[in-house]
Amino acid sequence: MQAPAAPSPAPSAATPLSYEQAGVVYDLIDPLKVAAQRAAAATATHLGSHGFSEVAASRGESAYVLDVGPFYLASIVECLGSKALVADEMQRLTGRSHYAGIAQDTIAMAINDLITVGATPLVVQAYWAAGGSDWFADNDRAQALVAGWKAACDTCKVAWGGGETPALAGIVEAGRIDLAASCTGIVSPKQRLSLGDALAPGDAIVLLASSGIHANGLSLARKLVERLPQGYLTEVAPGLRYGEALLAPTMLYSPVTEALWAAGIGVHYAANITGHGWRKLLRHPKALTYRIDAVPAVPPVLQFIQAQAGQGNEEAYGTLNMGAGFALFVAAADAERTVAIARAQGVEALVAGRVEAGEKQLLIEPLGVRFGADALHLR
Amino acid sequence: MQAPAAPSPAPSAATPLSYEQAGVVYDLIDPLKVAAQRAAAATATHLGSHGFSEVAASRGESAYVLDVGPFYLASIVECLGSKALVADEMQRLTGRSHYAGIAQDTIAMAINDLITVGATPLVVQAYWAAGGSDWFADNDRAQALVAGWKAACDTCKVAWGGGETPALAGIVEAGRIDLAASCTGIVSPKQRLSLGDALAPGDAIVLLASSGIHANGLSLARKLVERLPQGYLTEVAPGLRYGEALLAPTMLYSPVTEALWAAGIGVHYAANITGHGWRKLLRHPKALTYRIDAVPAVPPVLQFIQAQAGQGNEEAYGTLNMGAGFALFVAAADAERTVAIARAQGVEALVAGRVEAGEKQLLIEPLGVRFGADALHLR
Repeated sequence: MQAPAAPSPAPSAATPLSYEQAGVVYDLIDPLKVAAQRAAAATATHLGSHGFSEVAASRGESAYVLDVGPFYLASIVECLGSKALVADEMQRLTGRSHYAGIAQDTIAMAINDLITVGATPLVVQAYWAAGGSDWFADNDRAQALVAGWKAACDTCKVAWGGGETPALAGIVEAGRIDLAASCTGIVSPKQRLSLGDALAPGDAIVLLASSGIHANGLSLARKLVERLPQGYLTEVAPGLRYGEALLAPTMLYSPVTEALWAAGIGVHYAANITGHGWRKLLRHPKALTYRIDAVPAVPPVLQFIQAQAGQGNEEAYGTLNMGAGFALFVAAADAERTVAIARAQGVEALVAGRVEAGEKQLLIEPLGVRFGADALHLR
Repeated sequence: MQAPAAPSPAPSAATPLSYEQAGVVYDLIDPLKVAAQRAAAATATHLGSHGFSEVAASRGESAYVLDVGPFYLASIVECLGSKALVADEMQRLTGRSHYAGIAQDTIAMAINDLITVGATPLVVQAYWAAGGSDWFADNDRAQALVAGWKAACDTCKVAWGGGETPALAGIVEAGRIDLAASCTGIVSPKQRLSLGDALAPGDAIVLLASSGIHANGLSLARKLVERLPQGYLTEVAPGLRYGEALLAPTMLYSPVTEALWAAGIGVHYAANITGHGWRKLLRHPKALTYRIDAVPAVPPVLQFIQAQAGQGNEEAYGTLNMGAGFALFVAAADAERTVAIARAQGVEALVAGRVEAGEKQLLIEPLGVRFGADALHLR
């Protein structure tokens, strides 16, 4: 969800590209994040004055959870990031607006994070901040954004409660739009809460298929374009151009999590695979070994990016989703049924491995890749 | 919350300036808004699949409300807009960061809207999208934003649940930051819901004081700077410079609404006076006459803007808050107590007038200003 600084001259195709070379410098953001996290944590006490309490374990998780009595309330705000820049470029090149897909990507950012705590999403609010009132003058594009937003809400059975459509000349770049979604949901009944208490050795790891790059890794994907003589129009598979492949909308996973609950399957833990690739599987603080023995098919566009960027498997699986958009940790006995239920919702799935007692590590055995405990710093 | 296009040569001080001249063209945004509102309204049915329902009357109100059984859930997302540009300019001129105040402004945008429906705000999420990772390199400014955000959460007794701090080069302008806040709250007990059912002839209109311009009208305020030889450093009152006066943080009104409920006062209706100035008092669809017989003191910066822009009272009170940041409609018998409770919370207040049976209009008698039914189109 980051975007690069001004491009430098195109390196040779053999030169690997790292995320930092693509312009994102985490060192500058992180002291702020640390300060913000500390300050935010200190405000938890206010809930007590209303007779409520936060679920402290949710700080550091993908959505914020508080206990309001009969159930938990979960909330989140998530931005889309730079994928809109790819849509803009493809529109310039082909005349086609991809903003219906972009709308789905934005909503998916929020919903796929919210559901990891066991929440049912209820309401989405739209944040569409354009660089000027003229953004909306492209009526086809604006209507595509509306239609796509509604369609994603329909898929996830959430109410689109409203939103903000400001014109922010001077803050948002002319011709661009900053898209974000806030989402509120509930965890009901309370035992549906999945912050990982139940995550344990013996659990199965079920991976849900991605549709492509989703919305993380776009900085890298955009920087690679400089190396391609045909740019975004380069074919990554027969009849499939790079730009269009990148714009495949992010999968919406809440229909799967809702169907699992309805079928009586309790999800022990869930990870939304976004930035940091498969290292997200190491998210929970517990010391556990995650042993993967089967990997999903890699979408052509991700194979292409890995090859173009000259990345080995450790780097590729550590930054891109490589075919897995979401991970579910369920009781081993529920694994096959989980796959079947996902497929019934139109989402391909795979029993990819299992959780074991042991040191904190992720082992992707078919690839000989290992991520240790220090591979993921998200708290 | 809008910002102007590229500046044109400075007109004479006598030339009035309208909002459209300041660069915001509502005609372009509105067809999109209409389409979005229709699409959004159609998603309400999804709540039924969860056993919930929306409070339909909240569509068009300042926050979205749904019925989740024991209470109502309210949610909103609001952006700050271009006030950050004033903070940036003042920092350039004086070296002083105003981002603690900017944080309060952003939170106020969300909270002051949420509470109009009778909600108690519970959680705020921060959306801080910078034009690049380097925004955070100004450590004083970044820490001020954090500290101000926390302080505003403390004032409103809300939990800061988290947020997003993306670096969006290419979408957000270099050196700028797009600030927004999402807020979730509850209306509990349900009878606290104030969508205006109880608004009736005989009700008193209590106006809560603003601290200055708050966060609407900044486009105009910024355009006026071009006419001032000393720009933002122009004194608008002895020792008070224009830029600093503009940056006075928006008042936070939830401590008042919470105290009113605790004191047993039921608010019939509330209006957050933001864009459209006092025309916001005409917000409710009912045909009622709002008769104002006393107006609050006008903050020096707003007097200054009105004079500089050459605005008559009708235009000034129709675009700026002119000293009133929030309106409460209460039973006449509760009016004086409402003022006392507001003052006890540190907010100046005034019994400004009353609601009467009659055609839909707002009469500001001390100024001879009238706004008719067509003056406000927000639905």
